[in-house]
Amino acid sequence: MQSERQIRVHHRHWNPLSRVVIEDVRPQLDGGRYPIKRIVGEVLEVWADVFCDGHDVLAAAVKYRECDKEDWQSAPMHFVDNDRWSGQFELKRNCRYVYTVEAWVDVFESWRQDTRKKFDAGQNVELELIEGVDHVRKAAAGSVAEKGDAAALKRLASKLEREATYDERRQTLFSDEVVALMQRCGERAYKTEYFRQLELVVDRKAAAFAAWYEMFPRSQGKVPGKGATFQDCIDRIPAVRELGFDVLYFVPIHPIGRVNRKGANNSLTVKPDDPGCPYAIGSTEGGHTAVHPELGTLEDFRRLVSVAEENGMDVALDFAVQCAPDHPWIAEHKDWFKYRPDGTIKYAENPPKKYQDIVNVDFYGREREATWIALRDIVLFWVRNGVKIFRVDNPHTKPVPFWEWLIREVQSAHPETIFLSEAFTRPKMLKVLAKAGFSQSYSYFTWRNFKQEIIDYLTELTRGECREYLRPNFFTNTPDILPPILQRGGRPAFQMRLVLAATLSSVYGIYNGYELCENTAIPDTEEYLDSEKYQYKVWDWDRPGNIKDYVSAINRARRENAALHEFANLSFYPSSSDSILFYGKMTQDRSNMIFVAVNLDPFEAHEAEIEFPLNDMQIGGDDAFEAEDLFDGTRHLWRGAKHRVRLDPATNPATILRVTPFRHVDYASPCF
Amino acid sequence: MQSERQIRVHHRHWNPLSRVVIEDVRPQLDGGRYPIKRIVGEVLEVWADVFCDGHDVLAAAVKYRECDKEDWQSAPMHFVDNDRWSGQFELKRNCRYVYTVEAWVDVFESWRQDTRKKFDAGQNVELELIEGVDHVRKAAAGSVAEKGDAAALKRLASKLEREATYDERRQTLFSDEVVALMQRCGERAYKTEYFRQLELVVDRKAAAFAAWYEMFPRSQGKVPGKGATFQDCIDRIPAVRELGFDVLYFVPIHPIGRVNRKGANNSLTVKPDDPGCPYAIGSTEGGHTAVHPELGTLEDFRRLVSVAEENGMDVALDFAVQCAPDHPWIAEHKDWFKYRPDGTIKYAENPPKKYQDIVNVDFYGREREATWIALRDIVLFWVRNGVKIFRVDNPHTKPVPFWEWLIREVQSAHPETIFLSEAFTRPKMLKVLAKAGFSQSYSYFTWRNFKQEIIDYLTELTRGECREYLRPNFFTNTPDILPPILQRGGRPAFQMRLVLAATLSSVYGIYNGYELCENTAIPDTEEYLDSEKYQYKVWDWDRPGNIKDYVSAINRARRENAALHEFANLSFYPSSSDSILFYGKMTQDRSNMIFVAVNLDPFEAHEAEIEFPLNDMQIGGDDAFEAEDLFDGTRHLWRGAKHRVRLDPATNPATILRVTPFRHVDYASPCF
Repeated sequence: MQSERQIRVHHRHWNPLSRVVIEDVRPQLDGGRYPIKRIVGEVLEVWADVFCDGHDVLAAAVKYRECDKEDWQSAPMHFVDNDRWSGQFELKRNCRYVYTVEAWVDVFESWRQDTRKKFDAGQNVELELIEGVDHVRKAAAGSVAEKGDAAALKRLASKLEREATYDERRQTLFSDEVVALMQRCGERAYKTEYFRQLELVVDRKAAAFAAWYEMFPRSQGKVPGKGATFQDCIDRIPAVRELGFDVLYFVPIHPIGRVNRKGANNSLTVKPDDPGCPYAIGSTEGGHTAVHPELGTLEDFRRLVSVAEENGMDVALDFAVQCAPDHPWIAEHKDWFKYRPDGTIKYAENPPKKYQDIVNVDFYGREREATWIALRDIVLFWVRNGVKIFRVDNPHTKPVPFWEWLIREVQSAHPETIFLSEAFTRPKMLKVLAKAGFSQSYSYFTWRNFKQEIIDYLTELTRGECREYLRPNFFTNTPDILPPILQRGGRPAFQMRLVLAATLSSVYGIYNGYELCENTAIPDTEEYLDSEKYQYKVWDWDRPGNIKDYVSAINRARRENAALHEFANLSFYPSSSDSILFYGKMTQDRSNMIFVAVNLDPFEAHEAEIEFPLNDMQIGGDDAFEAEDLFDGTRHLWRGAKHRVRLDPATNPATILRVTPFRHVDYASPCF
Repeated sequence: MQSERQIRVHHRHWNPLSRVVIEDVRPQLDGGRYPIKRIVGEVLEVWADVFCDGHDVLAAAVKYRECDKEDWQSAPMHFVDNDRWSGQFELKRNCRYVYTVEAWVDVFESWRQDTRKKFDAGQNVELELIEGVDHVRKAAAGSVAEKGDAAALKRLASKLEREATYDERRQTLFSDEVVALMQRCGERAYKTEYFRQLELVVDRKAAAFAAWYEMFPRSQGKVPGKGATFQDCIDRIPAVRELGFDVLYFVPIHPIGRVNRKGANNSLTVKPDDPGCPYAIGSTEGGHTAVHPELGTLEDFRRLVSVAEENGMDVALDFAVQCAPDHPWIAEHKDWFKYRPDGTIKYAENPPKKYQDIVNVDFYGREREATWIALRDIVLFWVRNGVKIFRVDNPHTKPVPFWEWLIREVQSAHPETIFLSEAFTRPKMLKVLAKAGFSQSYSYFTWRNFKQEIIDYLTELTRGECREYLRPNFFTNTPDILPPILQRGGRPAFQMRLVLAATLSSVYGIYNGYELCENTAIPDTEEYLDSEKYQYKVWDWDRPGNIKDYVSAINRARRENAALHEFANLSFYPSSSDSILFYGKMTQDRSNMIFVAVNLDPFEAHEAEIEFPLNDMQIGGDDAFEAEDLFDGTRHLWRGAKHRVRLDPATNPATILRVTPFRHVDYASPCF
């Protein structure tokens, strides 16, 4: 080895010229493997450790570009503490960004600081001044300087070289004008770029702030035993909008398989007029790009999307990959599926359970690429028909690399598209789907009922690393999940869980019937009795005992209070009762502060002493503040951190308080 | 985009075939940017999240190889909990390793579990059995099966296809024999490798466990005003070995510059016979590969290395990159240095301070590659002359990429080489040098005196991420640092700090004179008065008040107790006094348990109730244990966690206790 006379590269990330050390760039996921997520209009703060051998003056910048553009932009970073630097830039576009950090030695500034110290210590700096002029001359000739600057620098250098005295040279080189010019044009030595470029997905706001309303379109009508139409759904839009929802989410709207169709309550015996389960997609009438004839036409669907849009609502569609045995693909694309030794198609199963009404595509069959592309094209088909939000059914039973590819493909052309992952599965699978690209994720909220478990779970979501990529969509219920707390707790539980979902998370949803407190289950299960999944249903939307006003009030509070548009700004505060949860959200500038106290016990009234975080609220210990209940408009004029609340499931299971400082007004001039 | 009929790769780490998710592989530094460190003979435990869509049975393995070999080896991983897997392999060689994780679907095992469930549920599994035989047939034909296995599988498949009944087929396919065969040879579907290969440096034990003794070779003689020789150093070896040290570390042994030489106590005025500072390297007598003529010849040095080796000691040399103004390189390699506008060479400076006896090489000059290679070749020169340990002077003032390259170059040919970084600098620079390759690092220990700050610092070192790469060498003092605690605290402080250094860290060092409690400083500084750095010195190694016996006792305790050979096994335990620090180290199998109580106050005696971690010690609350003081051999027979100690600076500033359970012995057979 001793004879080698060349520097070999030993490590793929080692570069002999990368003299400045740039480390621990944040935010960053899994060493840059996955993108983080943000929302248009937000500012991305980037942090990095930046340092170098010796004592030269460093400068650093965040380097970033929109993914589909070549040009890099730059945002200056500033030194914070302990070799930590920070910089930020605004996310102006709904698209993917790439960012990294670069740093360099500011040669002129290093020279200036050293020379200043020597001069201040009484040393002669004649030689240093010659070096200083050299730096100016070099900058004038450099490629960085714009025309005007280059000319100014050239003039300066000539003057300094020929005419100036020692003192003049020093004063000029230390002048603000030269410092400013040299900051722009001076030599950037040992420019080093962080060895990774990181990705960032910037979504539109609806990805992070929205209230969802899930419905079976066929059950939106008024005639028992008969399927409703898209027109019936259109007729329902004003009512849903009145409730305050932003997203109208439909379970699959496609033709339903007839082979092995399930009957009411998931029965294997089916009656001739049973409509079947919408998740058994496809029949002779068409597959994933067809509309169930009973609902109407594609034209009707597009009209529905338009009316929703006019009402300020997005339509979300279900994307369930599986096929019914009579789905057209099975005849057309034999190679996209798996077969048994007897030649029969392989049904879905989770042994010993069999799902004979459903067939899964073979994601790694001989026709892998064609299958993936066909699935992507289904999504693109609906995007072309106005759908911008997809709720994906059971993504955890399909390959993760497939989703990472599909979502990227769709969003690269249609960045406004939002994907919600229905992965009610193990925590790490749930998380990796979010990392791989899903804009939102179903969560375990549905089963978190008690104080400490809610605090623990929400702390993980808002304080853990997953805040960078996982946006939980808190569904109170789904067609598959009628949680025990709702079954047992009735109306107060529906109110309490609604407040939790809508104020803990910035994205939440209900499945229709929730506003009617529908809670009849198949005994000892979380399944609805006579579920819409397998039969037609007609709802009385004004049924006694409904909580529609309560829903409207909460959605209004959400819309009107910017603090509730964010998720990671959630904090929990002390409450003296185990049954009362107390938490709050504030905008960064404290112009909006919302506090919520919820009685988690649907059976009994509880009292608690709650404690406001006055410091964080920027309210003095002796200052008064106003707390306005957003349900009934009652107001408190409070002072100090601790106050008592009493929450009675029968009347007020929760209180949402907007807090405003009661400012002391000084007269502009003394009036006495 | 819709027209595209090909799957494009969207992300450098995305692979459509990587169906199994492998995440969070540990240990791992900065997303694989830097290697972790271990010691020969240790076992590396590797952890990873491994999971996949669906419910197939997975298998995983750690894949690893020695860096210079092509062949990969494999160690099975086992499922632990929550999708977390773990596996391990022994580090048999002193070299770099590469490791990663691979995982796959175990097709036969998945089939077997599903079929078992169906069969247990009373379903007919005729078709499944045909599939099972297919799996066996495929395995027989596969490339994985060794000859014997392939034949056995082929026989089995034929028999199962032709002769067997339904029940026989099932029983055979579920038999232990087939399961074992198929585990070895069965199809491994969707084999996925973690997207990063990680590096690991396996050092020899001395990198992690050693006691260092630093000396100025020229001060090891007996004639005042005259420099000692290597022969004098050789004569000193038995005494140093008697003290129990493993590494004999010499400050630079090269010719010392005459131009701008410094006088006694760093004076700018030099007397004709002032020997100069050994860190001003190079004169007409030679540079970094020469030996100071006063010390002897290279031959003498090699003899010294041999004698040290015979005494079980390594010789460590100082590697200080800088040159004196009369270093031969300056004439021979003008381009390796920087010059001022007046043509004079650029001296080292930290404005307004000037170091006119030192010139730094230009690491990024025109001759960058030649300069780096020349510096590397200096190290290789000394390696060829028997030196395996280098203490690097001020590495933080030289480029980090240079060290990363140099250490890797040297260790790739000479993996036994150890580099100690003397980076008394900001924490992040100190750490990145360790990441970049230094085997050991100077630390802030020298300035941590009080209970909480010691606990905090050691907790960071042993529990934080840096335990994977940073091995602190706890020096009690250095030629540049005589800490205030030693200046003020005298002999008891020397004892106390010695115990801390030697038992908190597995690598520690003293600079000679420490054993004599030498603590005369230049007032209000941490500098030694009349430092050896600038003048000849003759020591009386048997000077009254010395703590040589104490040093020997501690080094003996270190050597004889395996628990003290490790670092990250350190834990702190409760002590009721702020002046008494109580901590312990145990081997993983608890065969050796050492506990140390130290009085941090060198002035007064203190008492404390200390609390042993009986659970961790695997000693029952009612069981007796023996605690033997390793200084004076006194023993306690103790029971229960809490005991009192009294530590008097005048007599016993610290106690080192070896704890052995006092086992209850049952007679082999009843004797009554």
